[in-house]
Amino acid sequence: MIPILSVVGRSNSGKTTLLEKLIRELSARGRRVGTVKHHYHGSVTVDVPGKDSWRHRRAGACAVALVSPETLFVVRDTPPGLSLEALAHHSLFEVDLVLTEGFKSGPMPKIEVNRRAQRAPLLCGPADHLVAVASDWDTGAAVPHFGLEDVAPLADFIEREHLQRAGRPGLEALVGGRRVALDPQAEAELVRAIRGLLGDCRDPSGGLPIELRIPGQTP
Amino acid sequence: MIPILSVVGRSNSGKTTLLEKLIRELSARGRRVGTVKHHYHGSVTVDVPGKDSWRHRRAGACAVALVSPETLFVVRDTPPGLSLEALAHHSLFEVDLVLTEGFKSGPMPKIEVNRRAQRAPLLCGPADHLVAVASDWDTGAAVPHFGLEDVAPLADFIEREHLQRAGRPGLEALVGGRRVALDPQAEAELVRAIRGLLGDCRDPSGGLPIELRIPGQTP
Repeated sequence: MIPILSVVGRSNSGKTTLLEKLIRELSARGRRVGTVKHHYHGSVTVDVPGKDSWRHRRAGACAVALVSPETLFVVRDTPPGLSLEALAHHSLFEVDLVLTEGFKSGPMPKIEVNRRAQRAPLLCGPADHLVAVASDWDTGAAVPHFGLEDVAPLADFIEREHLQRAGRPGLEALVGGRRVALDPQAEAELVRAIRGLLGDCRDPSGGLPIELRIPGQTP
Repeated sequence: MIPILSVVGRSNSGKTTLLEKLIRELSARGRRVGTVKHHYHGSVTVDVPGKDSWRHRRAGACAVALVSPETLFVVRDTPPGLSLEALAHHSLFEVDLVLTEGFKSGPMPKIEVNRRAQRAPLLCGPADHLVAVASDWDTGAAVPHFGLEDVAPLADFIEREHLQRAGRPGLEALVGGRRVALDPQAEAELVRAIRGLLGDCRDPSGGLPIELRIPGQTP
């Protein structure tokens, strides 16, 4: 499972600045970071690079992808009810960690940015899955506090609590777009069953990654 | 499985124009079309809409997503060895058909655009999985020919040969990023095994879509 962590905070608290520092620090440590940001105001106007892809989109394509050897670029309709987990599964594949900016609701662990000058209490409490505060004062929250410039200790905390605990990536399962947690025995059984049924097809050694999609059943 | 069809042809043969017409025609028939286009020249310069996502990418994020209620926008590093099938699976989920522009190699069925004024033979033959020609003359190829303006009959052909044959979407399986074809009995057995092992978690009725990812095993 790709761990998802949310950086939250009030307007102008410095969320993007902290995220930039965290991305630089974690990337320098060899971690592949994906990010997600909400844009609340209707549709996003995008200049699709490459006029042909733009023409595809204008003609009504639901999704257009432009692939170069280095960069993959996708503009698409947002599927109704898209969960953050399904988004990470589909669009942010092959990253080690997803950091979101905003997304205050939902069960992801949250790091709140809070500056004394804003004179405002924290947005999140323990019920919101607050796991750390980045701040220039002691907010009193019963979670680890990090200075706004203390990016290395915050990255240590993320690696220790959210990447190393996640361990080697295991089976990822989404049912109806929501993550399903399996106990290790059920996971091993499922992997064995799938590798057993698919293994002969291409991969007798059983070492290749496998991706499956089973469509919903319409009654 | 999402059917993938490639529109190929020489430079300036009118590939994009034909694709635009096809996308309009198929969309008007209620089909959700995704497209893929290659950009051969190194990296793609993209103005990421929303300055925060741009800052994430500049700070080193491998993948950034910007989600609005209507539009989902992703810019990411292209994973090495990304197959067209894996790209369709990940980025173009929830479409009925993927049309690619170019992609002359590979086992996808191909529609070649060819204009008499170009005085050049077809690029593709039966060995290249040529299934149709869109042209203003009889190229002599032993596949159905459609006029360059005859978009409705070409869309009929695509629906009949590549969408209706595909039938209701079934299990989609990628092993090592490549599509694996299963016989119907093996597919039914695999779906039953997975629904059996995951069913209790969230979905006793067994009707929700399921997505799974099993990472590769490093020896």
